[in-house]
Amino acid sequence: MPSRYKMIHRVEFSDTDMAGIIHFSSFFRYMEVTEHAFFRSLGFSIVMEHEGSQYGWPRVRVECDYKRPVRFEDELEVELIVREKRDRSIRYQFDIRKSGDTEPGLIAQGGFTVVCVHYDPSVGRMRATQIPQALADQIQVSE
Amino acid sequence: MPSRYKMIHRVEFSDTDMAGIIHFSSFFRYMEVTEHAFFRSLGFSIVMEHEGSQYGWPRVRVECDYKRPVRFEDELEVELIVREKRDRSIRYQFDIRKSGDTEPGLIAQGGFTVVCVHYDPSVGRMRATQIPQALADQIQVSE
Amino acid sequence: MPSRYKMIHRVEFSDTDMAGIIHFSSFFRYMEVTEHAFFRSLGFSIVMEHEGSQYGWPRVRVECDYKRPVRFEDELEVELIVREKRDRSIRYQFDIRKSGDTEPGLIAQGGFTVVCVHYDPSVGRMRATQIPQALADQIQVSE
Amino acid sequence: MPSRYKMIHRVEFSDTDMAGIIHFSSFFRYMEVTEHAFFRSLGFSIVMEHEGSQYGWPRVRVECDYKRPVRFEDELEVELIVREKRDRSIRYQFDIRKSGDTEPGLIAQGGFTVVCVHYDPSVGRMRATQIPQALADQIQVSE
Repeated sequence: MPSRYKMIHRVEFSDTDMAGIIHFSSFFRYMEVTEHAFFRSLGFSIVMEHEGSQYGWPRVRVECDYKRPVRFEDELEVELIVREKRDRSIRYQFDIRKSGDTEPGLIAQGGFTVVCVHYDPSVGRMRATQIPQALADQIQVSE
Repeated sequence: MPSRYKMIHRVEFSDTDMAGIIHFSSFFRYMEVTEHAFFRSLGFSIVMEHEGSQYGWPRVRVECDYKRPVRFEDELEVELIVREKRDRSIRYQFDIRKSGDTEPGLIAQGGFTVVCVHYDPSVGRMRATQIPQALADQIQVSE
Repeated sequence: MPSRYKMIHRVEFSDTDMAGIIHFSSFFRYMEVTEHAFFRSLGFSIVMEHEGSQYGWPRVRVECDYKRPVRFEDELEVELIVREKRDRSIRYQFDIRKSGDTEPGLIAQGGFTVVCVHYDPSVGRMRATQIPQALADQIQVSE
Repeated sequence: MPSRYKMIHRVEFSDTDMAGIIHFSSFFRYMEVTEHAFFRSLGFSIVMEHEGSQYGWPRVRVECDYKRPVRFEDELEVELIVREKRDRSIRYQFDIRKSGDTEPGLIAQGGFTVVCVHYDPSVGRMRATQIPQALADQIQVSE
């Protein structure tokens, strides 16, 4: 039962800004892509149907601390770590390192708190619901 | 019956790249935002229901020629010009100038060919359809 | 001496995702654009030279809490509030409301901690420095 | 001497829009990332120094035709094809297919015309220049 997942991202030209380094918002793209790859690694999709109902995972909180600048063509290793699992929500931490980095320590550290929602026809909109059991069984909080 | 529509866009920091100038893809954002504001100026939305059916406007072709670089905090005037109107599609040209520019000529010139689609329950997907008359009556090809 | 600054942003089509609502990362764009407009309102630019040196404002921490979904063509009022001013850094809070909202409360609340850097030729890179006095004199912590 | 280069891109959640399909501008990101990977495959970087001068590759024209919609988690194969090589510019075509597609034909077809520039201290800005020979020798027009 995995509680961690690693993925490599290359910093692309369009991720940079005129300061010559990666734009701070690009890190959120890398974190989200890693979260979705984590779901695929478990045999699920972030956009899934379950028992005839459409599920989604809106964010209720995201954050990122930036430690050191990152440049075009750097390779980043983003490690997703499951920090909390509740009935209807999950909290992920993301540790971001530079591949082949000679300096110790993280480049950045982020976090997402996401809530499981599904379409509730009785109210005509998405609302919070329990994480489907088959998925919840696959996700373990990191020690 | 309008055939042209102008809108000012400021070049934002996240629109730039490490070359110190606006990233070429940002122009497509300005053009699309202008197209949608044009629809609102006619009393419509690019995302609209009409006679119980959901409409959309996918692009079948887009293009842009870049003439001169543009920098952070420059103000761009984007002028939409209706070049062609057919039963199911519209072709727009976009002339882009720099506000207060002392050099003559355009910064960039783009184009979109868009097709009107609606959800067809008989096939279970979106497909090309006639532009709703009330909207088509509002749009005139520029002379 | 201002400690708050308000700006309206319209949710554009490219800010949405397939869940039909605004993508969470788009809020960071609105917050950054508001920060830069705040600087312009003070007579400065986020990209400025001062006494022959190039200045910048990298983020050391950003965060956002999301309260309610936002849709295409909604108008958002983003209010920047200066929460902390130190020798070399500023902390902003961003309160985000929906224009004409009938429900009370915020749509989202974000925060940036930014540090003032300039190019230091003696080390050949950007490094943290005191906020230029002329600018620091213009910015007041909100009560 | 290569004249073609292929790369796989997965459609990510943030590449989609509220129409439920990939936003048209995302294709330009895939094309640019492929162009830059092509340069790396030749032992160069799109951001390079050569004989003490900084080089860049601004676009003078880009275009894309869209044939069929693409959805979240689809895998796209982007094939760069060198269509023209002149002293100071290159024209690329991009053929985009869906991995494992059962329908024949392209999903989209794009093109970039890029010009080689370097920093010219005598005029204090970037300007068009000959493609460095070592790079030009590596790039062949496709038959």
